Amino acid sequence: MSDDLTDAQAGQIPAGYKPLNWTRGFGRQIGPLYERYQGDVCSLGFRVEEHHTNGLANCHGGMLMTVADVAWGRAISVARSHFWVTVRLTCDFLSGAKLGEWVEGDSEILAEEDDVYTVRGTLRAGDRVLMTGTAVYKVIGPREPRPGEKAYVEAARG
Amino acid sequence: MSDDLTDAQAGQIPAGYKPLNWTRGFGRQIGPLYERYQGDVCSLGFRVEEHHTNGLANCHGGMLMTVADVAWGRAISVARSHFWVTVRLTCDFLSGAKLGEWVEGDSEILAEEDDVYTVRGTLRAGDRVLMTGTAVYKVIGPREPRPGEKAYVEAARG
Repeated sequence: MSDDLTDAQAGQIPAGYKPLNWTRGFGRQIGPLYERYQGDVCSLGFRVEEHHTNGLANCHGGMLMTVADVAWGRAISVARSHFWVTVRLTCDFLSGAKLGEWVEGDSEILAEEDDVYTVRGTLRAGDRVLMTGTAVYKVIGPREPRPGEKAYVEAARG
Repeated sequence: MSDDLTDAQAGQIPAGYKPLNWTRGFGRQIGPLYERYQGDVCSLGFRVEEHHTNGLANCHGGMLMTVADVAWGRAISVARSHFWVTVRLTCDFLSGAKLGEWVEGDSEILAEEDDVYTVRGTLRAGDRVLMTGTAVYKVIGPREPRPGEKAYVEAARG
């Protein structure tokens, strides 16, 4: 567990999730975020804190879209050790997330053609679906495999 | 001008823009943001700082979508003194914004039916279009008019 978390933050993370060590930029600003690998599925999650809220004390739509963008792109990161950029993101807002709720999301790849991936994703709070959507990502170049990813696990096996 | 801005921030705001006094929640976390009224058009803008960047030192897509969500909804705020929520947002990423660039956006209302608004919006950096998209918002209830809005200006005229 990271030394950077308050006790309240560290005590409220669902089993299997580990904090992302994002120490700069927008990722740090909106964090902390967490990831969990279960087989080939990587989920991203976070707990709604005060600095994520809108004027109604719910999670701001911009935060949900940011997590959708990152979480749904993980399906590509798991499949390939490549950088990618977002081409199009369509988000349907179905329900709000309240202050204190745990929000998590993942996606499945619908199609891959010429390094362009189309994925379908979801964000949930418990059994409640907060957001569904479709994203188009473009792979732009290779990078080192990261822990949890297929290529990393295979390389570690030797 | 707000006392909250650094000299570097205050010195780099295009003419006509005033800082939004968002002192809490996600709005404060991702700020500072600025607004400008020109006739019936309200634009939102910000300068890309370190805390807005992704791993490529460009503005993070989540930040651009957050600003799109808020900026494009302004067309409704100008027309009606009502709260609204986002129903669907589709964002096409056309170009990136670099650290230090000024980004601004606005929208036009395409349709209004049963308190559901469809708007078409844009984000730009200078002459470069960064993002286009379509948003669907639902009006949920009345609020007090704010400076710059039609109802506020008309009420001030008496």
